[in-house]
Amino acid sequence: MFVTFEGLDGSGKSTQAELLRARLEEEGEDVVLTREPGGTELGERIRDLLLHGGHVAPWAEALLYAASRAQHVDEVIRPALERGASVVCDRYVDSSAAYQGVARGLGLERVLDLNLVAVGGLMPDRTFLLELDPADAVERLGSDHDRLEREGSAFRALAASAYRDLAARFPERYVVLDATRDPDDLAEEIHGALRVRP
Amino acid sequence: MFVTFEGLDGSGKSTQAELLRARLEEEGEDVVLTREPGGTELGERIRDLLLHGGHVAPWAEALLYAASRAQHVDEVIRPALERGASVVCDRYVDSSAAYQGVARGLGLERVLDLNLVAVGGLMPDRTFLLELDPADAVERLGSDHDRLEREGSAFRALAASAYRDLAARFPERYVVLDATRDPDDLAEEIHGALRVRP
Repeated sequence: MFVTFEGLDGSGKSTQAELLRARLEEEGEDVVLTREPGGTELGERIRDLLLHGGHVAPWAEALLYAASRAQHVDEVIRPALERGASVVCDRYVDSSAAYQGVARGLGLERVLDLNLVAVGGLMPDRTFLLELDPADAVERLGSDHDRLEREGSAFRALAASAYRDLAARFPERYVVLDATRDPDDLAEEIHGALRVRP
Repeated sequence: MFVTFEGLDGSGKSTQAELLRARLEEEGEDVVLTREPGGTELGERIRDLLLHGGHVAPWAEALLYAASRAQHVDEVIRPALERGASVVCDRYVDSSAAYQGVARGLGLERVLDLNLVAVGGLMPDRTFLLELDPADAVERLGSDHDRLEREGSAFRALAASAYRDLAARFPERYVVLDATRDPDDLAEEIHGALRVRP
């Protein structure tokens, strides 16, 4: 089972990913919890370039995310799935589709196509979108803004809208949840949703 | 005028690129000489990842080259062409098509498509292929092998064959030259070829 969490920074993705990992491990499952960008040594070095690398051209940015993701799939995600583990990943292809494809304006289709090539077609079985009003996302983030989240409210609003479109386009794997709900209630619903088709 | 040099390492691309730059500058042209991978600060950092980054998954490698190229076009090549300069570039899209697409086996079309997206469709007006027997390339390189050139003779032979296919596919921009000829004679022919269609 390959599960991804998507949503704006501040939506509680990392918290829910961690809660899901703990719950599945209690049940005796072999679980790999990972995140993007990063997740590998090369990926962390690419992440440094992205976050602290000065001016990065829009397509260079999209290609660096895709490169990090290709390495992540090759080194971590695919081997884990092949040995029968579950993989819980904080951000994946859809983050690039939303942020680079739509918010950055490179084109949803072109960024999706690029990333499908990068991951060799490996898409998640289930994607949890923690939906949050873009204005609330800023408040919840506090001072922990990274390079993307410094982009401003229009950028975040475009990404939020792109996520809704992706959820409508891929109903077979998307579960959309209100990120402002109680975290333990959310965790319960997420765990339950793994056992049924959306 | 956007001119690229292609061929195996050891084929004399860098020498000919430099000779062409000097010749055009003598004629009063504004010339930007650059190279890939690299050519920008971000590109140099990506180059470090590629050459010294440990295991790099095949698609991660192709995407890193494409990211470096996207930055190179955005920051160096397109601005130079827009101000009316000529650009002479040592390796470009066709290097990825030959090395990652064919020698690494990712697929010529997929790597070409990816790179056309990365460069926003900007392809050279003229490409000089310095053709060299793969066995001779090793001798001419001596001990100056980089990561790609350590790949071995089968890898080099595939790249050489891919270059021939690319030259046949894009006759409107390719000029194929025997890399073992006298460098000054080659430089003369390259300079002359800029004035006529191949």
